[in-house]
Amino acid sequence: MKLKKFDHMNCSLAQALDIIGERWTLLILRDVFFGIKRFDQLQASLGIARNILTARLNRLVEEAILEKRPAEGARYEYRLTEKGQDLQTVLLSITHWGDRHKPNPNGPRLTFVEKETGAPIAPMAVRASDGRILGPRDIKAVRGPGMAPAQTSGPKPD
Amino acid sequence: MKLKKFDHMNCSLAQALDIIGERWTLLILRDVFFGIKRFDQLQASLGIARNILTARLNRLVEEAILEKRPAEGARYEYRLTEKGQDLQTVLLSITHWGDRHKPNPNGPRLTFVEKETGAPIAPMAVRASDGRILGPRDIKAVRGPGMAPAQTSGPKPD
Repeated sequence: MKLKKFDHMNCSLAQALDIIGERWTLLILRDVFFGIKRFDQLQASLGIARNILTARLNRLVEEAILEKRPAEGARYEYRLTEKGQDLQTVLLSITHWGDRHKPNPNGPRLTFVEKETGAPIAPMAVRASDGRILGPRDIKAVRGPGMAPAQTSGPKPD
Repeated sequence: MKLKKFDHMNCSLAQALDIIGERWTLLILRDVFFGIKRFDQLQASLGIARNILTARLNRLVEEAILEKRPAEGARYEYRLTEKGQDLQTVLLSITHWGDRHKPNPNGPRLTFVEKETGAPIAPMAVRASDGRILGPRDIKAVRGPGMAPAQTSGPKPD
């Protein structure tokens, strides 16, 4: 099955999804955030086919989201670059949405807390520059120089 | 191609991705957030095959992320429910990552601003309950009652 690529779309969301929107990719990154760094461990944790895991890891290395380093007792390990660490907001936004809308009947599965205080982190939220929480109707998009006025497809901002 | 479903995984991220991780789904939701509400408009904006758009919209309605309403001049329109509006944090986290790591060489494409003040919103960030911004090394996951101690696959929290 040939999948249409999104990287031709002049949209930051589409450009990002072209990389992180591939199936398994965010689950692989979840595991790397949790300290699982080696191919065989990732494969065991995810139950993913080896050829798919190889393809996803190679893409993440190409995109400089992961880096491959020689490791003791294994040929390589994978580490998040700064670009990869920046995806934590993405993973936590999706996780908090899942916590809220696809809860486990027994209670929270995992709670993310601040290491120093043990207090749960704030729910991921859209905020003003001064930190106030904003609702979906409180914001709008304005066009910048990276979007030509004649662009006809994609979002229609104010 | 049969895709492995993620909904058996006891993980809020996997449960959410089982719905919103399908190709096109987040781009469809982006357009609905931008006020595109009708099938033909969505189809024109996205350049997506009609059968795929139908399947994605039906799934989003089933999951109560969108609701289908009778509309003037069209048979239906799609509106975000509250569960759907809660996905704005997901869309903006991915968009901000794309802004930063896949920029357009001419400058910002779209900037999201607070309607009332016109000031850009804060970059999506992980924050403590008092609003302080936290880095990837400042947080950890703790197991809750929704995750059995014997669970062997998936994340290994502290």
